[in-house]
Amino acid sequence: MRYLTAGESHGPQLTAIIEGVPAGMPLIAEDINKELARRQKGYGRGRRMVIEKDQVQIKSGVRHGFTTGAPLTLVIENNDWKHWTKIMGSEPITEEEEKEMKRVITRPRPGHADLNGAIKYGHRDMRNILERSSARETTARVAVGAVAKKILSMFNIQVGGHVLVIGGVEAKAVDYESVEDLKARSEQSPVRCLDPEAEKKMIEAIDQAKKNGDSIGGIVEVVVEGVPIGLGSHVHYDRKLDGKIARAIMSINAFKGVEIGIGFEAAYLFGSQVHDEIVWDEENGFNRRTNRLGGFEGGMTNGMPIVVKGVMKPIPTLYKPLESVDIETKEPFTASIERSDSCAVPAASVVAESVVAWEVANEFLNKFGEDRVSEIGENYKKYMEYARTF
Amino acid sequence: MRYLTAGESHGPQLTAIIEGVPAGMPLIAEDINKELARRQKGYGRGRRMVIEKDQVQIKSGVRHGFTTGAPLTLVIENNDWKHWTKIMGSEPITEEEEKEMKRVITRPRPGHADLNGAIKYGHRDMRNILERSSARETTARVAVGAVAKKILSMFNIQVGGHVLVIGGVEAKAVDYESVEDLKARSEQSPVRCLDPEAEKKMIEAIDQAKKNGDSIGGIVEVVVEGVPIGLGSHVHYDRKLDGKIARAIMSINAFKGVEIGIGFEAAYLFGSQVHDEIVWDEENGFNRRTNRLGGFEGGMTNGMPIVVKGVMKPIPTLYKPLESVDIETKEPFTASIERSDSCAVPAASVVAESVVAWEVANEFLNKFGEDRVSEIGENYKKYMEYARTF
Amino acid sequence: MRYLTAGESHGPQLTAIIEGVPAGMPLIAEDINKELARRQKGYGRGRRMVIEKDQVQIKSGVRHGFTTGAPLTLVIENNDWKHWTKIMGSEPITEEEEKEMKRVITRPRPGHADLNGAIKYGHRDMRNILERSSARETTARVAVGAVAKKILSMFNIQVGGHVLVIGGVEAKAVDYESVEDLKARSEQSPVRCLDPEAEKKMIEAIDQAKKNGDSIGGIVEVVVEGVPIGLGSHVHYDRKLDGKIARAIMSINAFKGVEIGIGFEAAYLFGSQVHDEIVWDEENGFNRRTNRLGGFEGGMTNGMPIVVKGVMKPIPTLYKPLESVDIETKEPFTASIERSDSCAVPAASVVAESVVAWEVANEFLNKFGEDRVSEIGENYKKYMEYARTF
Amino acid sequence: MRYLTAGESHGPQLTAIIEGVPAGMPLIAEDINKELARRQKGYGRGRRMVIEKDQVQIKSGVRHGFTTGAPLTLVIENNDWKHWTKIMGSEPITEEEEKEMKRVITRPRPGHADLNGAIKYGHRDMRNILERSSARETTARVAVGAVAKKILSMFNIQVGGHVLVIGGVEAKAVDYESVEDLKARSEQSPVRCLDPEAEKKMIEAIDQAKKNGDSIGGIVEVVVEGVPIGLGSHVHYDRKLDGKIARAIMSINAFKGVEIGIGFEAAYLFGSQVHDEIVWDEENGFNRRTNRLGGFEGGMTNGMPIVVKGVMKPIPTLYKPLESVDIETKEPFTASIERSDSCAVPAASVVAESVVAWEVANEFLNKFGEDRVSEIGENYKKYMEYARTF
Repeated sequence: MRYLTAGESHGPQLTAIIEGVPAGMPLIAEDINKELARRQKGYGRGRRMVIEKDQVQIKSGVRHGFTTGAPLTLVIENNDWKHWTKIMGSEPITEEEEKEMKRVITRPRPGHADLNGAIKYGHRDMRNILERSSARETTARVAVGAVAKKILSMFNIQVGGHVLVIGGVEAKAVDYESVEDLKARSEQSPVRCLDPEAEKKMIEAIDQAKKNGDSIGGIVEVVVEGVPIGLGSHVHYDRKLDGKIARAIMSINAFKGVEIGIGFEAAYLFGSQVHDEIVWDEENGFNRRTNRLGGFEGGMTNGMPIVVKGVMKPIPTLYKPLESVDIETKEPFTASIERSDSCAVPAASVVAESVVAWEVANEFLNKFGEDRVSEIGENYKKYMEYARTF
Repeated sequence: MRYLTAGESHGPQLTAIIEGVPAGMPLIAEDINKELARRQKGYGRGRRMVIEKDQVQIKSGVRHGFTTGAPLTLVIENNDWKHWTKIMGSEPITEEEEKEMKRVITRPRPGHADLNGAIKYGHRDMRNILERSSARETTARVAVGAVAKKILSMFNIQVGGHVLVIGGVEAKAVDYESVEDLKARSEQSPVRCLDPEAEKKMIEAIDQAKKNGDSIGGIVEVVVEGVPIGLGSHVHYDRKLDGKIARAIMSINAFKGVEIGIGFEAAYLFGSQVHDEIVWDEENGFNRRTNRLGGFEGGMTNGMPIVVKGVMKPIPTLYKPLESVDIETKEPFTASIERSDSCAVPAASVVAESVVAWEVANEFLNKFGEDRVSEIGENYKKYMEYARTF
Repeated sequence: MRYLTAGESHGPQLTAIIEGVPAGMPLIAEDINKELARRQKGYGRGRRMVIEKDQVQIKSGVRHGFTTGAPLTLVIENNDWKHWTKIMGSEPITEEEEKEMKRVITRPRPGHADLNGAIKYGHRDMRNILERSSARETTARVAVGAVAKKILSMFNIQVGGHVLVIGGVEAKAVDYESVEDLKARSEQSPVRCLDPEAEKKMIEAIDQAKKNGDSIGGIVEVVVEGVPIGLGSHVHYDRKLDGKIARAIMSINAFKGVEIGIGFEAAYLFGSQVHDEIVWDEENGFNRRTNRLGGFEGGMTNGMPIVVKGVMKPIPTLYKPLESVDIETKEPFTASIERSDSCAVPAASVVAESVVAWEVANEFLNKFGEDRVSEIGENYKKYMEYARTF
Repeated sequence: MRYLTAGESHGPQLTAIIEGVPAGMPLIAEDINKELARRQKGYGRGRRMVIEKDQVQIKSGVRHGFTTGAPLTLVIENNDWKHWTKIMGSEPITEEEEKEMKRVITRPRPGHADLNGAIKYGHRDMRNILERSSARETTARVAVGAVAKKILSMFNIQVGGHVLVIGGVEAKAVDYESVEDLKARSEQSPVRCLDPEAEKKMIEAIDQAKKNGDSIGGIVEVVVEGVPIGLGSHVHYDRKLDGKIARAIMSINAFKGVEIGIGFEAAYLFGSQVHDEIVWDEENGFNRRTNRLGGFEGGMTNGMPIVVKGVMKPIPTLYKPLESVDIETKEPFTASIERSDSCAVPAASVVAESVVAWEVANEFLNKFGEDRVSEIGENYKKYMEYARTF
């Protein structure tokens, strides 16, 4: 599978085309809409999340509720487009109109793509950069991820996520019975945190940051359960699935780090403490006592849940401004405010689930075929039996 | 550019083909050999590093000391191949010979690709997996990285690396004047650490781990200096250079995490503390006061040094064994010992430099052309002047 | 650059996303619409061409008439979608509705993707195949090609096409002064043929085929003028631009062959007759006396016009039916009629221009950069001067 | 699967790395050597074919006669390398040595990559181009193709080829019972032609061309038998297998055209004459009466043999020289002679088989899995039964 996304934050719509989705899979708009809604929830979001109530339109690739094998087109319209037709229209405008508009953005915000994007692409109105570098684009990736999750669910593979840290407040380690359980419980929390005490403090931290005109980041964790042994491959560096997941996580707007399993803790432990002992029983075949390595050995899945963490920096848009320089006047200024989220970590947790789901689903189809869900299912079932009795 | 590597740990040779190297670049074996030697140094390596003295042979793509534009073939022979011709030969062997050999590996080591690889590829002799999943393969990636570094050096881009943590011993933050300086100083340290006190303790930690039959991991940092603004792109998630670097780092054997700039610390800071204020002066154009974001905004370089950290787990081969299960008898056992390194972090630091250099060089050529070094240089120079006066 | 297309023949819309278009290029809907109109013209098309008057909507990537560097979304709505919402809707339908619909297609048409597509993707209603395999999809490729042509036109590279054979009627070789001239004259012909006598006979052949309930194919030629020396590369088989063009042409619906330059005639000539002698003068640098090789040597452009021919088979939808077998009843039948074009060669000529333009534009940007039109222009200009004085 | 090739015509060796070959497949050097020998045979080859007796060394990816899943390294040494170490060595040479060598090539040959390659890559010694653009590189592709053929043979898919035209002499259509038969008979012919009368005339034509210091080209045909229905896909233009094959054929040195099935003849026939009627019987399922479309509908295989033709131009190296211009002196000259083949069509027929085998094998693995031969076999068998009873 492969996909492209397109669309600006204040343009008419976001669009994604997904090519390579197997035929015969049930898929309705609601499968995607419920994920879009999850992305829009979360304590700490600003006003815009209320305006937008994202709804997908499936414009191709699905007929009468089932995928056909043809490319999917997913369209999510921007509800406030009507207010932006002039500023963001694709048609040429007169010089006069241009002057009237007075919305040319010449003041790059530190922490955003504004300045380096403007230099790279040669724009003197940095709106041409920020409209695309905006995290609004992750809406399309969540839509794509919803399709990936649906594929995985056909084979009882579940993807869940939760928030571990916000603004320095750490959730304590909380047990959950299954990813199903994890999903249900994180869904109840306005900050997607399983630890109720931490949740409370996270909310306070968000309130406090907002009050200070500041912003805070955090750490999210994604868990994928039911993954067969042997997705990815050790034979070539670019076929390692943990590497692909690392890229996917790091490509989420504002993410600055990624860990698989124990991650950076590994620098502080002995070898005897970090590896997962192998056990075996007749019914289940090979298994592990622990999951410190987060489901990967040699870049391949080992049958344990995939566990990935990612860190999001505080979103750079601030009431408390940073110093910058106007690209026309070359005068210093303190950076302007585009929007008002003070914490986007809970939403980012949904985005992280989505991009991980995509990588796993893609690798799953690489291994088991990509034409028909029923064929893939048979190939998969046969492999699982083979692996169990290896 | 693109490349493939091949070769087993005890096979005749490692091979890499690099396609897309620009023509007209000076390149000699020594450019690569010096990097191979750097990988082989480092306190804590076992006996094999002494046996092997890796030397590259350039079998294509270079003529009279200059690249021609044709694909490069890099061959590094395994010096101990002569002892392995029977066990690792490509020719069929008789059943009798097979029995005599008695070297079938049926005992998977926790933390290695052995078991999941064997299941995926259907091998009952796990040597067929471990020969390729071995970190010996990183030799080829260091050779490839040496070519990437050479390309970057044509345009005054320097890549350096050092070790920050080994076995829980943290180096304190040490200033260096330039990547040149960083390289010179880390080269002097047997553990590639700039902090002499930490160096001492790291060596002790390695000795202690070895004595205990255990192993330790650590954290390495790669710095790339002289990078122009605008490598990578914000316009599509898979064009973000920080994402590509994350993948490259995570794909190094035994790596479990990656950070750009402040990385996971971002979860504990306010937005006003993490972004890099923008300044400007006539001579240099736009610049930054700080480099917390490690040289990236919006997935693009911002002109500040690229700063990447990666964490390596303790290598799973241990004198102090872990529990596992024989795949034939299904009997539990305590895992066997293949080799004797107790810490490979200093060498991994060189590998990390190599894979980062590759990603940056590749992106550089995407932007400035890939045919002739002189043409690329002109395009680059013109761009630098444009960016300076933006 | 890369692109994906999506959309069914009777679905709501065709969509294309193009990623990698350089910033700062003027682009308006009309640039694309005029190409869409060219595709819809042509003697021999059926009723549907009249219904549809294709109009593109640019939904992203262009602002105020200029590309921004962000991905382009091109949408072309299907005007008769309103009549197909039930049959082609993405929402699930009840079993009752399904029965009422009575439009399940179980009779595969020879020459179409119907049967092999149904088997591959597991559909018992072959509408799920033919809606996507329909040549309607080429509308999206013409839209994409219009963007490619626009890019090329920035650097004075012109793409034209004309029809050489229809239904066995061959146009005699006609001189044209330039691709501009070729375009102007082919545009005047209802069959896009430069030879007025052949044109007349082609029209008769189309009329006759229609009368007989039969269909006819033909040969088209695409010419690209102003191409610099050195697009593509000899260094690796998959970097040869003539190979990429061959693939592009063969991927057009119903195309069965492709030639570069003299093509198959080369099997009947001596070496002394097929190669293009090299000349030189101070003003223009190196040049050729002839262009038998169609602009390519070693998979690279040699500065002469690219000349490509492609052959289209008669479209398989016929009034004069062929024998086939119902996939449910397994009863033989004579194949049904879906639409009524008897010759689509003139339109296919426009599609051929489009796909060739894409390949050339893509290679052009590979060589000269892909960020900003102005930067690309400078790199290009410098190269042209270098090549001229080589 | 993917592969890279490297190596110069007079360098030490040709190298290919193939990544993605499934594990558990028997493979020995002889499987490859026999194809290399077939490429070296053929009436009309010059002296060098006698010097070289190509032998592959498998340097990785195969152990004890079976593939492991790891990348394959194939090395073919150039036997006359010892005479070329100075001229082609990778080490720098002194200016003096450079002068002594007197082998700088400044005279571009029409029809070769010499001139455009030199301009693209900035070489004033065109040996830097012609060493890589030489058809010697096809040796590596034949080696790679031998592996692809081996994969296909695991599933009873046979690839054969023969020569249809040489220097204007056309073989009459000859029936063969199977590809096995085709292979056996073409192997007996010094020009790989099934028609004994044409064979005789082809040999005469080659002799005559040689005598005249001229060269001739021809047309080859590749047939693939036993292909399952549904390789490739209609859903996106770049997934069409006929397109991939067209590219593969056109990328062979000196090839100028490609046809699938009836190819260019389609422009001269009616629709009722070109499509393959569908029949069905209980034992075999769906089948076709004819195979005019060469095994493809909608870019997918339809179960009939794949039939591809390619045309090779006369090799441009001539005793009968063409006019050209020295790049240093800018003086006209008549082009020099590098080697002495007057016809390479029989050898090119083997290359054509190889590149087609690769594309088909690759698509086969895409559909049925790529890890283990046994797993692929099971998935394949199940699909064949499904397709038979569709």
